Amino acid sequence: MSFNTFGHLFRVTTWGESHGPALGATVDGCPPGIPIDTAALQHWLDRRKPGQNKYTTQRREADEVEILSGTFEGQSTGTPIQLMIRNTDQRSKDYGDIAEKFRPGHADITYWQKYGIRDPRGGGRSSARETAARVAAGGVARAALDTLLPGVQISGYMVQIGPHPIDRARFDPAEIDRNPFWVPDAQAASDWADYLDGLRKSGDSVGAVIEIVARGLPAGLGAPIYGKLDTDLAAAMMSINAVKGVEIGDGMAAATLTGSANADEITMGPDGAPVYGSNHAGGILGGISTGQDVVVRFAVKPTSSILTPRATITKSGEAAQIVTKGRHDPCVGIRAVPVGEAMMACVLLDHLLLHRGQVGDGPRGRIGPA
Amino acid sequence: MSFNTFGHLFRVTTWGESHGPALGATVDGCPPGIPIDTAALQHWLDRRKPGQNKYTTQRREADEVEILSGTFEGQSTGTPIQLMIRNTDQRSKDYGDIAEKFRPGHADITYWQKYGIRDPRGGGRSSARETAARVAAGGVARAALDTLLPGVQISGYMVQIGPHPIDRARFDPAEIDRNPFWVPDAQAASDWADYLDGLRKSGDSVGAVIEIVARGLPAGLGAPIYGKLDTDLAAAMMSINAVKGVEIGDGMAAATLTGSANADEITMGPDGAPVYGSNHAGGILGGISTGQDVVVRFAVKPTSSILTPRATITKSGEAAQIVTKGRHDPCVGIRAVPVGEAMMACVLLDHLLLHRGQVGDGPRGRIGPA
Amino acid sequence: MSFNTFGHLFRVTTWGESHGPALGATVDGCPPGIPIDTAALQHWLDRRKPGQNKYTTQRREADEVEILSGTFEGQSTGTPIQLMIRNTDQRSKDYGDIAEKFRPGHADITYWQKYGIRDPRGGGRSSARETAARVAAGGVARAALDTLLPGVQISGYMVQIGPHPIDRARFDPAEIDRNPFWVPDAQAASDWADYLDGLRKSGDSVGAVIEIVARGLPAGLGAPIYGKLDTDLAAAMMSINAVKGVEIGDGMAAATLTGSANADEITMGPDGAPVYGSNHAGGILGGISTGQDVVVRFAVKPTSSILTPRATITKSGEAAQIVTKGRHDPCVGIRAVPVGEAMMACVLLDHLLLHRGQVGDGPRGRIGPA
Amino acid sequence: MSFNTFGHLFRVTTWGESHGPALGATVDGCPPGIPIDTAALQHWLDRRKPGQNKYTTQRREADEVEILSGTFEGQSTGTPIQLMIRNTDQRSKDYGDIAEKFRPGHADITYWQKYGIRDPRGGGRSSARETAARVAAGGVARAALDTLLPGVQISGYMVQIGPHPIDRARFDPAEIDRNPFWVPDAQAASDWADYLDGLRKSGDSVGAVIEIVARGLPAGLGAPIYGKLDTDLAAAMMSINAVKGVEIGDGMAAATLTGSANADEITMGPDGAPVYGSNHAGGILGGISTGQDVVVRFAVKPTSSILTPRATITKSGEAAQIVTKGRHDPCVGIRAVPVGEAMMACVLLDHLLLHRGQVGDGPRGRIGPA
Repeated sequence: MSFNTFGHLFRVTTWGESHGPALGATVDGCPPGIPIDTAALQHWLDRRKPGQNKYTTQRREADEVEILSGTFEGQSTGTPIQLMIRNTDQRSKDYGDIAEKFRPGHADITYWQKYGIRDPRGGGRSSARETAARVAAGGVARAALDTLLPGVQISGYMVQIGPHPIDRARFDPAEIDRNPFWVPDAQAASDWADYLDGLRKSGDSVGAVIEIVARGLPAGLGAPIYGKLDTDLAAAMMSINAVKGVEIGDGMAAATLTGSANADEITMGPDGAPVYGSNHAGGILGGISTGQDVVVRFAVKPTSSILTPRATITKSGEAAQIVTKGRHDPCVGIRAVPVGEAMMACVLLDHLLLHRGQVGDGPRGRIGPA
Repeated sequence: MSFNTFGHLFRVTTWGESHGPALGATVDGCPPGIPIDTAALQHWLDRRKPGQNKYTTQRREADEVEILSGTFEGQSTGTPIQLMIRNTDQRSKDYGDIAEKFRPGHADITYWQKYGIRDPRGGGRSSARETAARVAAGGVARAALDTLLPGVQISGYMVQIGPHPIDRARFDPAEIDRNPFWVPDAQAASDWADYLDGLRKSGDSVGAVIEIVARGLPAGLGAPIYGKLDTDLAAAMMSINAVKGVEIGDGMAAATLTGSANADEITMGPDGAPVYGSNHAGGILGGISTGQDVVVRFAVKPTSSILTPRATITKSGEAAQIVTKGRHDPCVGIRAVPVGEAMMACVLLDHLLLHRGQVGDGPRGRIGPA
Repeated sequence: MSFNTFGHLFRVTTWGESHGPALGATVDGCPPGIPIDTAALQHWLDRRKPGQNKYTTQRREADEVEILSGTFEGQSTGTPIQLMIRNTDQRSKDYGDIAEKFRPGHADITYWQKYGIRDPRGGGRSSARETAARVAAGGVARAALDTLLPGVQISGYMVQIGPHPIDRARFDPAEIDRNPFWVPDAQAASDWADYLDGLRKSGDSVGAVIEIVARGLPAGLGAPIYGKLDTDLAAAMMSINAVKGVEIGDGMAAATLTGSANADEITMGPDGAPVYGSNHAGGILGGISTGQDVVVRFAVKPTSSILTPRATITKSGEAAQIVTKGRHDPCVGIRAVPVGEAMMACVLLDHLLLHRGQVGDGPRGRIGPA
Repeated sequence: MSFNTFGHLFRVTTWGESHGPALGATVDGCPPGIPIDTAALQHWLDRRKPGQNKYTTQRREADEVEILSGTFEGQSTGTPIQLMIRNTDQRSKDYGDIAEKFRPGHADITYWQKYGIRDPRGGGRSSARETAARVAAGGVARAALDTLLPGVQISGYMVQIGPHPIDRARFDPAEIDRNPFWVPDAQAASDWADYLDGLRKSGDSVGAVIEIVARGLPAGLGAPIYGKLDTDLAAAMMSINAVKGVEIGDGMAAATLTGSANADEITMGPDGAPVYGSNHAGGILGGISTGQDVVVRFAVKPTSSILTPRATITKSGEAAQIVTKGRHDPCVGIRAVPVGEAMMACVLLDHLLLHRGQVGDGPRGRIGPA
């Protein structure tokens, strides 16, 4: 609705710039009675935190989240939850050049043209640092899902770096947390390490594809037309920095199928619930969840801040070359994995609330003898 | 915001079922003084109208639009514009079977599970017939863009049917209106005709990829984070029936590029405006338009209503086979072309109004000598 | 959110002008499975219909509502409900003068100044005829409340005309439907008849105060801060044409009380629910319902269309006198009673849905043997 | 549209509890290039700050605002502005009793019934302390109005305490800043001081009426039906803690007028703009500003936290007496003056942005010779 808010009933407004005093998320509409503490949120932030290995930016941010409102004795109260992360490692001297020169592939030029003013330090508002706030908000959403839909699991992982996709035949979920790429394919993890080492040495970067899966959902989440679950997932993923494509289920490849191949046939399962013979639809029909896995993929373009010189112009219109030194991720897609998970959690919770409200049937507080 | 509304300031709420008395769009927020008449809207509806050739459904709908409010003496007044299209050819006898059996690939089962009630005639609310209302609303948006941003052009066309993409080397815009597929490649048009004839005879269907391009836009449309132009375009396209993937610029292929290849280099053009050496970004950086062509693609899955029998279940949980007779498009993607154009028009107008609101007329930042 | 929409989850967008082809309401977010038919909606429209007695405008409108979408076999399906009312008695010849002269007290001049174009016939969009659409939408809301909160009763009545308030000591609910003023005081009904006869003869008009009460609500509806139940009620009532003041509970008179007099003391009732010793708060504390009667009052200014000549200007800035002939209500407040009831119903349903969602806990449709 | 957000394009989300670590406002949609610094915002906060004289709570809060995002080198950038105020004087020992007993007239019982959990310290989220965040946000809105509509002035003052209204014949704007009540009547200031001293000694409190006037507005702000300027003002004022009634122009007294008395006659002024002979309408016709003063009044009920014992119940349903010691305002209405001004500023800026969006800069319709 607004420029910096997403969600209908579970509404997250992120705020803050890369090199300002702090950034964070104002989370409105969280149901009451959800266990929320700093440690739980920190767990998710730590997954996204920069500087953890040589494949992500060497900027050192503690990324410690503070809960400033909305909880009491460790539980949400139904009022807005303010999550703040102080910026600590703001070496803005690295960025002097980019106040005058527009970095190709970056939002520098469009922010300038639109607003006539921007905070150039580290990309300001358009920095991928904004996604830390999303991850914190996603931690709240996960906690609420754990309470309201126990058993729901959200899992993100990389399925492609540059021209190198994983081999689905080697898919092993246990691998995801064993390598710096969150890739469920040990061989790919090894190959990608070599590939990225080479890229980093040449001062270049590369794109990636991330897949996010939600398991254990009920049928019935989502709504017709513009409130479709996939509509909101597409918006959520496309709103992440550097994302250029979003797919649900078979995605773009759905174009190549015939109707007979694409139809996910239905039978009755032993427990009296429908069972589908396949999942081309990615768990969503007509915008509403089927109860199958919800499967989303998105492509992240290569980091635009590279050491290779590129032609550009200055604010005064003069031709220039730019090399972005700073400390940048050779593949920003890697850190997009926890961000995609967070967005999935937020969208699912939002649709659960649209379905059943912030509080659910009946008042929650009773008065009378215990 | 709501389930059946899209847009922030230019807000379109569609309503109506496939076989109800009528369907339409409530268009709120159109600027005043825009020339709007039935003939202009009908022009766009006629492009989408079924039954025009053997590659689209043989249902015969006049699809005549009535303007019930919001204009005076041929101009918009700034008040809500109600666009109504009466349903005339509602052979609901064709649909008896599907009241009890869930068609695989359709919203039948999820609507039922969510709501416990649905209008089964022709898919009810989940029918692609809903897109007629979008095309009518898109006609209003185009008229407003013609007035407020003269020179903007929106053009949609098919770039792939099933496994058969166009050859970009043969791209000829003049071909688009010369064939039933809106394909800018005469050879592809001929090949696809043969391909679809075969599919139709076998009672099957196929998917497609559509590309929508907007030319002549100013820099500065869009907003950071969740109000990104590409975020809203992704949502708009994904909300169209049967769409499973959305791409901006290079889309999913952006994952395969290096940063040096992906960066669209910038120089100053002879008219004092920035010129880009390429358009991998699809005309959008940081969610804000660059002034280049805005390029969106989306994949439409194959029509799920096919003559090939598929396994399914009934409402009472019994195993069944279903063959969807009715009159269906062998490639529903064909008629998605004008729908995608309409969504592009609505999103661009909405962002123009948002820009005028927050920033005022025109971009604020200029590039050039002080 | 938008210009012509109200509500968060139960969203009503009204459209149409006084003398256009039709007007109506697009109702989005109604829960599924609510019994809705034309006759039930017509019942409420007939209460508001003009020309029923000599104290309301003599314009003769059938005000017949058509349901164009959103129901199947007499029940709501959860999709948008389009309610259309054709305009039939559009004697626009009565209005020639007002295309050029601005009527004092009317929106003529401000619509013109804002938009530079307006439909002058009968006030166009600013006509009180728009409230017919609200009453139709209110009928949907009442039906949903009857299903979801059986026992809730909404009752509106007049408590003052001009300087003549009712005597609360004579308050008799049974009187409300026995007189043309919906006044719960037989003596006032008789006095007001004489008073209005005199006013009508002199070509003048007068204001009024209407009170709307909702009984049988649960505690817990409403939300903190800007989602307060009283905030939405204030907006809903102030949005009605000619309303200039809104009160909850003691309203403006709350200013005159001491804290000890104002505090509604609490005890436990015999059925184990809290009981309040008084209701100064009007059934709302901190924006959330207490379970007591929710009490709202609003003041309607006198009809501005009068036979008494008033000084004004023309579009070209010339001084003029205007007498509004037409067929107007001597006290437009009378017909505001059913409108206020409708707004109360819409706001209550909306807040119920915010509390428990569109569908409620769990999917509604089951699959399996009956 | 969510529970804690107000505004359409200029959107303010407040967050925080009375005794949590901090509270604040997330301000989204501020135009770029507006001069904003801490000192300017602090000016407005200091007006509302508690403990400034014996007629307001003796709680000592520095109420120092920090700007955490959205500005660069002293100007807004168009991105979200996060305003944080740390709580410093949180003597929560004062509040032990109210964790178990519901204070009559307070939100204690309804928050409990709705959410089943609440932060009882100082009223938690329902504390009037939340209004500090509104005042900070209002400071941003005023700065934007100063830039975009120079000459607009917003002035709030008290017009009644308990049964004691001001005498309009003695109205002197210069008095407003000379007394602790912001009352434009020196005699009333003196009388009220005596009256409140008596009330305070008896441990009681009293209500008040506040008037807010905006001068220097252009015609054309506001929109039809649910986007009326007065609709949003009514909602904004009613959302303030303890407000029970809102009036525009003549307000509730409009009910007592005849149409001939109520019509604000129009002539052409010497500068070619319309001039009105009176302002019964409070500067708004059909929801759109006329260019006259916009006049809003609201009634604040007496502080419910009083030393007089009142009957209530505990969470376990037992009868109890409660005396609220704490440090409370004998007339919470006094500190509502700067809050009302802030809400007026926010609503006006929001409608200015909405107008620029849909209509563009300036009104479109002109009055005068062709």
